[in-house]
Amino acid sequence: MSDYTMSVTMSADYDEAVPMVRSALADQGFGVLTEIDVKATMKAKLDVDVPAQIILGACRPQLAHQVLEATPSLGAMLPCNVVVRTDESGATVVEAIDPDAMARLEESAVVHEVAAEAKRRLRAALDALSEGEH
Amino acid sequence: MSDYTMSVTMSADYDEAVPMVRSALADQGFGVLTEIDVKATMKAKLDVDVPAQIILGACRPQLAHQVLEATPSLGAMLPCNVVVRTDESGATVVEAIDPDAMARLEESAVVHEVAAEAKRRLRAALDALSEGEH
Repeated sequence: MSDYTMSVTMSADYDEAVPMVRSALADQGFGVLTEIDVKATMKAKLDVDVPAQIILGACRPQLAHQVLEATPSLGAMLPCNVVVRTDESGATVVEAIDPDAMARLEESAVVHEVAAEAKRRLRAALDALSEGEH
Repeated sequence: MSDYTMSVTMSADYDEAVPMVRSALADQGFGVLTEIDVKATMKAKLDVDVPAQIILGACRPQLAHQVLEATPSLGAMLPCNVVVRTDESGATVVEAIDPDAMARLEESAVVHEVAAEAKRRLRAALDALSEGEH
């Protein structure tokens, strides 16, 4: 969908998909530390109606710890966001930030290694969601 | 501190600084939608002790709405993180993601405009924190 995200489309509807995404992230060792219900927030703050969307902040504490020890500034890029939303066609899209795209902004070798592992795990979570469908 | 963040150092200690940061963000129209107490999380999940650090997820709903309408994938980069932490010397550092650095990954003109406004407002919040000190 973009150069800085990885995504899959699910046939499950949004309400079914959200717990499946949480579960797939947990299977890859990610806890969900933050969540933003975008639809509810936009309604409450701006009184506008937007499609259902949630931003889950996924964090694998071991990886976060490594990266913050190496490069404290990286805190500004944590956690890894995983978005569940419905697109124009009504399909459910799960879209995760690509940690490699973020790591390109930083020269640290540790950051690149951690980003590669985070990417591998996020990719595996997305693949599991996609495979569960077919 | 990095190519993808903007930061200021405060002489206030961490516990005093956090509410000042929230207030400076509010003055620029940012709500705090998420927060991660990194120290508490690392202690709870890994039983390791790290310096006090909080990651605040700052969002100006009008800007988020504009950017999501233009480029749904951008949800994976929201909200704008603002980190408060103590550095090696014991100083309190406030470090915000630079929305322009993020926008470089995306070609949309709307995204660039919104990122420029978000950056201007975050910069103003940081400047206010810094000026309040001197």
